[in-house]
Amino acid sequence: MANSKYEYVRLFEQPDNLLPQTWIVVRIDGRGFHKLSDKYGFEKPNDRRALDLMNAAAVSVMKDLPDLTIAYGVSDEYSFVFHPNCELFERRSAKLVTTIVSGFTAAYVYQWPKFFPDKPLQLSNLPTFDGRAVQYPNASILRDYMSWRQVDCHINNLYNTTFWSMVLIGGMTNVEAEKELQGTVSSDKNEILFSRFGINYNNEPEFFKKGSVVYRQYQLQEPEAVGTTTAHTQQDDEPISQLSRTQQEKIRKLRRKAQVVVEHVDIIKDDFWLRRPWLLSGKPGKIPVE
Amino acid sequence: MANSKYEYVRLFEQPDNLLPQTWIVVRIDGRGFHKLSDKYGFEKPNDRRALDLMNAAAVSVMKDLPDLTIAYGVSDEYSFVFHPNCELFERRSAKLVTTIVSGFTAAYVYQWPKFFPDKPLQLSNLPTFDGRAVQYPNASILRDYMSWRQVDCHINNLYNTTFWSMVLIGGMTNVEAEKELQGTVSSDKNEILFSRFGINYNNEPEFFKKGSVVYRQYQLQEPEAVGTTTAHTQQDDEPISQLSRTQQEKIRKLRRKAQVVVEHVDIIKDDFWLRRPWLLSGKPGKIPVE
Amino acid sequence: MANSKYEYVRLFEQPDNLLPQTWIVVRIDGRGFHKLSDKYGFEKPNDRRALDLMNAAAVSVMKDLPDLTIAYGVSDEYSFVFHPNCELFERRSAKLVTTIVSGFTAAYVYQWPKFFPDKPLQLSNLPTFDGRAVQYPNASILRDYMSWRQVDCHINNLYNTTFWSMVLIGGMTNVEAEKELQGTVSSDKNEILFSRFGINYNNEPEFFKKGSVVYRQYQLQEPEAVGTTTAHTQQDDEPISQLSRTQQEKIRKLRRKAQVVVEHVDIIKDDFWLRRPWLLSGKPGKIPVE
Amino acid sequence: MANSKYEYVRLFEQPDNLLPQTWIVVRIDGRGFHKLSDKYGFEKPNDRRALDLMNAAAVSVMKDLPDLTIAYGVSDEYSFVFHPNCELFERRSAKLVTTIVSGFTAAYVYQWPKFFPDKPLQLSNLPTFDGRAVQYPNASILRDYMSWRQVDCHINNLYNTTFWSMVLIGGMTNVEAEKELQGTVSSDKNEILFSRFGINYNNEPEFFKKGSVVYRQYQLQEPEAVGTTTAHTQQDDEPISQLSRTQQEKIRKLRRKAQVVVEHVDIIKDDFWLRRPWLLSGKPGKIPVE
Repeated sequence: MANSKYEYVRLFEQPDNLLPQTWIVVRIDGRGFHKLSDKYGFEKPNDRRALDLMNAAAVSVMKDLPDLTIAYGVSDEYSFVFHPNCELFERRSAKLVTTIVSGFTAAYVYQWPKFFPDKPLQLSNLPTFDGRAVQYPNASILRDYMSWRQVDCHINNLYNTTFWSMVLIGGMTNVEAEKELQGTVSSDKNEILFSRFGINYNNEPEFFKKGSVVYRQYQLQEPEAVGTTTAHTQQDDEPISQLSRTQQEKIRKLRRKAQVVVEHVDIIKDDFWLRRPWLLSGKPGKIPVE
Repeated sequence: MANSKYEYVRLFEQPDNLLPQTWIVVRIDGRGFHKLSDKYGFEKPNDRRALDLMNAAAVSVMKDLPDLTIAYGVSDEYSFVFHPNCELFERRSAKLVTTIVSGFTAAYVYQWPKFFPDKPLQLSNLPTFDGRAVQYPNASILRDYMSWRQVDCHINNLYNTTFWSMVLIGGMTNVEAEKELQGTVSSDKNEILFSRFGINYNNEPEFFKKGSVVYRQYQLQEPEAVGTTTAHTQQDDEPISQLSRTQQEKIRKLRRKAQVVVEHVDIIKDDFWLRRPWLLSGKPGKIPVE
Repeated sequence: MANSKYEYVRLFEQPDNLLPQTWIVVRIDGRGFHKLSDKYGFEKPNDRRALDLMNAAAVSVMKDLPDLTIAYGVSDEYSFVFHPNCELFERRSAKLVTTIVSGFTAAYVYQWPKFFPDKPLQLSNLPTFDGRAVQYPNASILRDYMSWRQVDCHINNLYNTTFWSMVLIGGMTNVEAEKELQGTVSSDKNEILFSRFGINYNNEPEFFKKGSVVYRQYQLQEPEAVGTTTAHTQQDDEPISQLSRTQQEKIRKLRRKAQVVVEHVDIIKDDFWLRRPWLLSGKPGKIPVE
Repeated sequence: MANSKYEYVRLFEQPDNLLPQTWIVVRIDGRGFHKLSDKYGFEKPNDRRALDLMNAAAVSVMKDLPDLTIAYGVSDEYSFVFHPNCELFERRSAKLVTTIVSGFTAAYVYQWPKFFPDKPLQLSNLPTFDGRAVQYPNASILRDYMSWRQVDCHINNLYNTTFWSMVLIGGMTNVEAEKELQGTVSSDKNEILFSRFGINYNNEPEFFKKGSVVYRQYQLQEPEAVGTTTAHTQQDDEPISQLSRTQQEKIRKLRRKAQVVVEHVDIIKDDFWLRRPWLLSGKPGKIPVE
């Protein structure tokens, strides 16, 4: 063929397939969202429209990729989780990451006017996201990853709620508030919120305190009496190599039928995972009867 | 800190920094653009609006990332090139690729209504792109990569122009046209175009025959008498390790001032590179006098 | 410092740390052992001296690296297994592999005269080994890996025993024997061995049929009544991040005290693993009372 | 086949092919040679027998692998260099590194009695080496790597020569000598050597000052008048993709015929490389007429 002379350059493409049978987390982050949130006047400490837009974009990605198991979002970041059995794109890292980043960006930019009708985007200040894939060898560590993000959400939200109360209600400068909060622990911030501003942090919206969990909904199950620790160490017992292509395609179809939901609940304790066994097992549950 | 118990999960993030002093090419491709072009009625064989939109998105990316040296686009793909001296994001592969993919997607979706005013995008059919990074050890191989893409552009465009002439003008079915073209060489296709449809392929628009080159414009230079092969084997003589941060920032500023241009010219022969020595040297040229 | 001008070349060293909390198998293979076994007159189908030398070298490696959990050898290959908790050399792949390959080679060459007193090595035909590291995400897959090697041992030994009986006893040429064995299954080979040569394969030495397992010996435990599948899916429940350096060093010392044994037993069934729970748990057992 | 049930574990082996057309350096280091040199009574600051043994092992490796271009050794480390055109083992990193490490170890252990006839090795204290592969994109950086090692050799040898003179001749304790040398520059050490011990460092053996260069010898060439910098930036102009297998095999044969020599000369300046153009070009030179 005419172009064979140059075609050798393809040899420089190196494979980047992730290890089989590991959990894959693709975490994306807003690029320069501090500046962007100023530019488009996001409300402090939490802009409900911006968070709803993040969730809407995440739902788009979940619907587009039935291989995704669950996603968790907080602030301008989102973590998307593939099950160990996932064989999408032969588990090529760059392909998985860029597909999610591009799908998320497209959905975010496209739906912006719906959530910010009075703040049109400008070409020179478009929202963009970067991303990376990380592998976790078992369900226990995957759950620790999810817990890490939700604990982070809590810590940041408590800080931000206190900080912006001091600034917006208390009339302090940013520098003054930052200085006073330095070295404080959770109870200190709770106390400041309550004593100075009459705010009981526990009554703050779950949305802000817990972040957003996105997943496919099936019939919830009763946590079995047996053991609360089961979920945490549950084994992924059927490697993909024993699932035929037909079976995989069937599972994909079942997943497409399921409703994608957004919730603001605790994902650190076992309960969430025990009631939704399809998340760790990778096997679709029963579609709830309406 | 409260979240230290889970923070160990960060240890699973593995570094992906690319080798220093190599050329980095990030190539992005439209996902499912065959279906997408049907959905939104792209013209065949080339839709000028769609190509203009690709170029507009590429220009956005080039302006956003002054570290980029040159880009080349054809059909629904674009290759972005970082110079060996590039230290952006510490050369982390996923960060470089996702930043380009996200910026390109955002610019493409945002500017769609400008190029397709009568074909509004739908949430369930948003254009997205995947991408990957490839390293090339020297300028000679980088140029072979660029030549590979431009030869590919030529081959595909000749084929598509002939195929769609046979279908749209000649009234053949897709299958008939495909079958007749099987095994033909360039001269056969030129002959079909000319004898049946009076089309001289040489007179087709350069835009379609050459694809699009995007780069920062400085004063063109006369190719030196010395040697036509120089450009092809030119050395990158000053490793980044000897460029201070201040020097790098200065170069970045100079690049931001330069105009980003889109051209449809030959990039296989030496001439293009000899007249624009800043592309392979990585050193900004002189801003042209207006 | 005087050499700072060149020291930047260190930046080209790329990290190769393996993923935390995975099982690491380093498999080494003799290079050109077909030729080597001819050169030094190894007996067919199995040379007991050569296999004893392989095992002696493996024991040396196991003693040298207390972080190793278990090893399995057959013919001129050996697989060495590190537990998910292993942090040796920060899990750098090249360091782990080369340390094992070099230690094995040194022990093999050094001990050669003891096992082949009448066949002195020659400089131009020294035995060498190559190696690679592979990661397995959980104990179940690690056990499948071990089973794979032992099944392979069985298949090859049955073939070789039959082939060499046909050649050495039956007087066939290599080509004739190879041809007749083509397409045969296990029962065919058993039949040939028994009917032609009066050999009952079941009575062949376990050493040749099962290969060699090398590990640290502690007090064997009774397999618990509970479940035969437990061993196969046993969780590694305490990630290394929660083991202090002192604890790790203590475990290393306990391991150094244990006796390294070589056995020729089944490692496919659960029994082997259930009786030796320290292998999958990574926690040293009790030193047997003499 | 009978073992297909377990064979899926092969999917966990990840490719590790190095980038085409880069220089590959495999550097190996003695493991725990400080302790080993005490154990076997190496002379200080340089043990000629130990260095000769290192070189003998390196020559063995060079002869075994005609793909190797050059090697450089100092103290208990050795760097082996593959040309960008090298396609050995499909450039698989672990295979290249372990083959060199194992070959070096075997040759070192085997030849030990020849160099240390009165110091027999013990099984519990065998010399071993670890190794790693590093890629360098062009000849200029490869030469900087070689220069880095030779500058290091000089720095360490000057220090060690001074230190051991102070201890062995001057009667100082190790701690005293170390303390006095702290913060000194080269001229200080030269002065100590000369004024206290009458040693002119320049007259020390080239072997110790320059380390050892090992390569295939062809007819030396006159450095061309043109330019002293040519060698440093010389291009590797013919990518392997244009070399047929037959051509590669022919080159390999030519290399096997060449004599492998060990020299103690400057490899930092251009002269060494200009006179031996086959090293950077990768093309065998003319066999010298005897």
